[in-house]
Amino acid sequence: MIKNDLLLKTLRGEPTERTPVWMMRQAGRYLPDYRTLRDKYDFFTRVQTPALATEITLQPVDQIGVDAAILFSDILVVLQAMGLEVQLIENKGPVLPDPVRIAADLTRIRVPDVEETLGYVFEAIRLTKKELNNRVPLIGFAGAPWTLLCYMVEGKGSKTFDGVKSFCYTQPELAHRLLQMLTDTTIAYLKQQVKSGVDAIQLFDSWGGLLSPDDFEMFSLQYMRQIIQALKNEVPAILFAKGAWGSIPEMVQTGCAGVGLDWCIRPETARKMAGQGVTLQGNLDPARLMSPVPEIKKEVTKMLNGFGPGRYIANLGHGILPHVPVDHAKAFVDTVKNHVYQSREKQVFSSL
Amino acid sequence: MIKNDLLLKTLRGEPTERTPVWMMRQAGRYLPDYRTLRDKYDFFTRVQTPALATEITLQPVDQIGVDAAILFSDILVVLQAMGLEVQLIENKGPVLPDPVRIAADLTRIRVPDVEETLGYVFEAIRLTKKELNNRVPLIGFAGAPWTLLCYMVEGKGSKTFDGVKSFCYTQPELAHRLLQMLTDTTIAYLKQQVKSGVDAIQLFDSWGGLLSPDDFEMFSLQYMRQIIQALKNEVPAILFAKGAWGSIPEMVQTGCAGVGLDWCIRPETARKMAGQGVTLQGNLDPARLMSPVPEIKKEVTKMLNGFGPGRYIANLGHGILPHVPVDHAKAFVDTVKNHVYQSREKQVFSSL
Repeated sequence: MIKNDLLLKTLRGEPTERTPVWMMRQAGRYLPDYRTLRDKYDFFTRVQTPALATEITLQPVDQIGVDAAILFSDILVVLQAMGLEVQLIENKGPVLPDPVRIAADLTRIRVPDVEETLGYVFEAIRLTKKELNNRVPLIGFAGAPWTLLCYMVEGKGSKTFDGVKSFCYTQPELAHRLLQMLTDTTIAYLKQQVKSGVDAIQLFDSWGGLLSPDDFEMFSLQYMRQIIQALKNEVPAILFAKGAWGSIPEMVQTGCAGVGLDWCIRPETARKMAGQGVTLQGNLDPARLMSPVPEIKKEVTKMLNGFGPGRYIANLGHGILPHVPVDHAKAFVDTVKNHVYQSREKQVFSSL
Repeated sequence: MIKNDLLLKTLRGEPTERTPVWMMRQAGRYLPDYRTLRDKYDFFTRVQTPALATEITLQPVDQIGVDAAILFSDILVVLQAMGLEVQLIENKGPVLPDPVRIAADLTRIRVPDVEETLGYVFEAIRLTKKELNNRVPLIGFAGAPWTLLCYMVEGKGSKTFDGVKSFCYTQPELAHRLLQMLTDTTIAYLKQQVKSGVDAIQLFDSWGGLLSPDDFEMFSLQYMRQIIQALKNEVPAILFAKGAWGSIPEMVQTGCAGVGLDWCIRPETARKMAGQGVTLQGNLDPARLMSPVPEIKKEVTKMLNGFGPGRYIANLGHGILPHVPVDHAKAFVDTVKNHVYQSREKQVFSSL
């Protein structure tokens, strides 16, 4: 019953009249109305107040015209639900004052009842679905267990996350125990998001690309596979592991409907690695939206032609940057919407 | 006349009795003798005093038994020579108090006389060659123009260098003018390093992997190509562009003798992309040296078998981390030295 179901059709491999488009972090700081709310309410107040989360989620749908909403929230709410304190310092990133480092820290962590600890997320989903009134689908999301472990152990952001790697290499049993707890929590969390109304989910592995392909399998992908397997019969799942290009074939094999890509891979290379049976999503360099509008149009057109029509969702290769002018974001979205592929036959690209 | 010429033979594609090994940042903080000098002399005193630079350069040759020395220096000395102030704050990274942002800043920058501005580097090379007494080859190096531009514009380190990208996308003419000045300076600098005695050079593009493949060509590779072309008939050149795996075939075509790899690519994939006519170098995850020694041996053996013998130099995928125990670094080097490939025929791997 969703009026604009381009995204869902594309994830299912069905033909569509044009390529759908949305932007990671589309509900965020580049929007003046978001900044107004940011000045009034702190980060976790915005996340934990369903009316605010809903308002923020809808802003890019109303103002930029994207083809999907994605719930305004944060991947770290799962760590809070598991018993850890998470602070978010504006413009600085997350801080966990008591990170996990040794086995004894397990006493502070639990696989929580998600209804009890994350009820505000499900309430925000129900409210957003009501406000969206079936205009576009709503995407739910969670952080990948590996990315959550990065923050859980490191206690803050890092360029290379050497601390959590060292933790995994010296205390692998503890690392795997935590990763399984994160996985179990995430499955319950996403299942409840689906029950509350999300139409698709995306799993964000922001730091998967810091691992070698073998370590990515060991510390990240095997857990994401469990999550995708548990969810894939309920809603289509998109797996986005930034930088983990070397494992694209293995990601496809998890059973996900879509694979997200960063900007460091050519569309043709990605399609060759992924095969024809999965939808690809991405992958403009977010910094490219700082270019003048004619340049943006040129770059987006090149990207669209590179991926070709069908089984493709236009997006950025990572979250939109805070300093992007609103009309540049709109130019990105409008270029996708107005794009005409050269061959009409190509437009109708059936499921493979 | 160099006694241990494994590295040079391998770069030329000649057969060797075993795989050569060295480590990026092998002269550095993980060595107690380095830390002693660090406590006495600040960073640029260590870099600019030939006797100190020589002493530090030799430490890993004497203490770890690597098959090559690499001059202790810093890529940012080129920016100093071009007229910019560079501060290096211990454990924090570089800071340029007056970064380049607008065309008017060009008046502060020059293509310098390298003899005059970087004479201490050439003096350190001559002294190191004397002290090495032909035991192992000496590698000279420089930063890639793109990576130097990152610091020149951003004024400090960054996770994503969005500032310099935005600079390139909004002021491309100025960016290209600066990149050409950096290229001209680097060519003169490396030519003088060769005249002073280095046996090979490595070009470090630490931030090339932050660019899309097309932008990598436009803002990085076309300038590295000029440098390699200018140098390749003098000494073998190794090109290391961290994260720029998507452009491996294009890097090979620059005429470099070797391509450095980070740990996010499987050896087999890298060889397939690079073809047989180039030496590959890398690529253990530096964080893997935090593992217990038996694990290190296992991982290094897997890497060696993945690359196979011939046209391969064992190394890390990035610089060694400061907290690595010395015996772990030695375990890395010794595992390479003691490795026996399964088939004897494979050991003799002639130039292709």
